[in-house]
Amino acid sequence: MASRFALVIDPAAADDLRTDFAETFTVIDPSAPALSVGELSTQRGDGIFESIGVVDGHAQEVGPHLERLAHSASLCDLPAPHLEQWRQAIAQAAASAGAGEQVIKLILSRGIEHGPTPTAWVTAAPAADFSAQRTAGIRVVTLDRGFDSGAPARAPWLLLGAKTLSYAVNMAAIREAHRRGADDAVFVSSDGVLLEAPTASVILRQGDRFVTPAPGAGILHGTTQLSLFAHLEALGFATAYETVPASALPRADAAWLVSSVRLAAPLTSVDGTAIPVDAELTASVNRYLLSPRD
Amino acid sequence: MASRFALVIDPAAADDLRTDFAETFTVIDPSAPALSVGELSTQRGDGIFESIGVVDGHAQEVGPHLERLAHSASLCDLPAPHLEQWRQAIAQAAASAGAGEQVIKLILSRGIEHGPTPTAWVTAAPAADFSAQRTAGIRVVTLDRGFDSGAPARAPWLLLGAKTLSYAVNMAAIREAHRRGADDAVFVSSDGVLLEAPTASVILRQGDRFVTPAPGAGILHGTTQLSLFAHLEALGFATAYETVPASALPRADAAWLVSSVRLAAPLTSVDGTAIPVDAELTASVNRYLLSPRD
Repeated sequence: MASRFALVIDPAAADDLRTDFAETFTVIDPSAPALSVGELSTQRGDGIFESIGVVDGHAQEVGPHLERLAHSASLCDLPAPHLEQWRQAIAQAAASAGAGEQVIKLILSRGIEHGPTPTAWVTAAPAADFSAQRTAGIRVVTLDRGFDSGAPARAPWLLLGAKTLSYAVNMAAIREAHRRGADDAVFVSSDGVLLEAPTASVILRQGDRFVTPAPGAGILHGTTQLSLFAHLEALGFATAYETVPASALPRADAAWLVSSVRLAAPLTSVDGTAIPVDAELTASVNRYLLSPRD
Repeated sequence: MASRFALVIDPAAADDLRTDFAETFTVIDPSAPALSVGELSTQRGDGIFESIGVVDGHAQEVGPHLERLAHSASLCDLPAPHLEQWRQAIAQAAASAGAGEQVIKLILSRGIEHGPTPTAWVTAAPAADFSAQRTAGIRVVTLDRGFDSGAPARAPWLLLGAKTLSYAVNMAAIREAHRRGADDAVFVSSDGVLLEAPTASVILRQGDRFVTPAPGAGILHGTTQLSLFAHLEALGFATAYETVPASALPRADAAWLVSSVRLAAPLTSVDGTAIPVDAELTASVNRYLLSPRD
C-alpha cells in the first residue's frame, strides 16, 4: 500500500476562466482523517463516483468516465462537475502511480449537511490482483434486483442509471453470491431481464455477435463495455445493445463480466450451469484492455 | 450549532466483561476531519444508522432504536453491535445536549476498506424546528418504490428492512416531492401497496382504528410508530399492522408521517387530494411524543 495517494478538490474554485486547477487541489494523507462526520456521503450515501483503471501510469478511458460522472450528477441533482478540473486531478493522481495496475476513484459528495458546496476528492491505490479471475474465470449466480424492467423509465427518483455511493445492495449481492458458493452476482429484473453485475457490465457472445443489456434498462453504461465493443467492431464482429432475457445467459457461447479494474472475467458457470470459456479471445481482450486507451 | 457533539466508538474494545465503556469513546470535534477517504460508509454507503430524538436531555426510545440497529446489522452481515456500549455512548451524547430538541445519530460503518473492524460514531446536534409541520401539516405525493410487495421476502439482499446508509434514493424522492410542489413523499410498491415515507412511517386513521403498513412489506419498523400505537391502545383505540392499498391513503379519516425527530406531521393532502386534519388529536399525540419515553 506504499503508493496510495489522495487529493481533495475544491469544486467551488472551478470556473471557466481558470486553465490550471492545481491550486484547487490539496494533497492529503489517504489514511489520515479527512472527512467530517457531517459528510452526506457517509450519512446518506448521497453522492456519485467513478473507478478508473490505471496501467503503468496511464489512466484509461478518462473521457467516458467523466461523461458518466456528469450524467450521474445530473440524475442526482448535483452541480455539474467541472470536467477540466477533474481531468487535471486525475492526471495528478495518475502521475503519483507507479508501474503496474492501479485504481483511481473519483468521489463527488453532496457535501457537509447544510453546507454550501459539494465535497470532492480523488484517490489512487494499487489494484487488487485479478489475473486469476481474468484467466480461470468466475462462477456467478443470478439475483433478483427487485424492480421490473419498466421501473427505471417511470421512476427516475430510483436513480437506476446513476453511479451513486449508495452501494449497500450491490455489496450485499456479492456477499449472497459468496454464500451460494459463487464468485459474483448478475442482477436480473423481477420480470426476467438481464441487467448488470453489482460492479460490472455483462457481455454475451452469441455466435459471432456480442450482446449487452441496453443501458435504458436502469443499468450503468459500462465504460469498459463501450471500449470493448469498439474493439470488437474493429475486429469485424457485430455488437448490439438489446433487451436480453436472463434465460439467454446460460445458453451463451461465452460471457464476461467487464469493468474498469478487473477488466474481462470470463463466466465459467451461471447458477451452476457451465458456460464455455474462450481462453484465447479472453486473453486477447484483456491485452487490449491493458493497452493505453483514452 | 453551538451544542454539536460527536464521539467515536472503538467497537473492537467492547466485551461483556467490561461494564464502563467510557474508555472506548473518543470525543471529537464534529466539524473537524475525523474519517479517512477509505471509509466504506462514504465509498459504498455501506453501514447502518439510527436517528434518536432528544428532549431536554432525555434520549427517547433508546431500547427500540438499539434493537433496530442490531436488526439492521444482522441483515447487513455486520458484527452485532454491543448494545451496552452504544447505550453508554448515547447517554454521553445526551448529557452534552442542552434544553430543547436535539437529534442523536448512531452510525455503524463496515469500516475502512480492507480494515479489521467496523467504524462507529455517535453525533448530537440541535434538531430543526418542525413545529410548523407538526401543526399546519404537510402535503405529500406518492412515489413508486420500484419493487413489488413480494420482493422483500424473495430477495433479502435488497436489504429492504435495514436502515442502511445507502439513502440516495430516499433523498431523491424528497427532491422529487419538492419538484411536485409537495413537502414529502410516501413510497408505494409497484403493485400498489402503501409502504413508508423516505424518513418516516405512515399511520392512517380509519374511524376509531389506527393502521400502519406491516413491517414485512420491506419497510422499517418505526420506533415512533411503535411508541404511538402503545399510547393509542392505552387510550382505548384499536391499532393494526396491515397490507394497506395505496388507494386507502387519500380516503383516510386522518393520516400522519411519524418519525423520531419531526414526530407526528399530519397529512393535509395526498397527490393533491385533501385529507382531514384532526388538530386536537395531533397536538395531543405530539405532547405525548415530546414527553420522556424509554
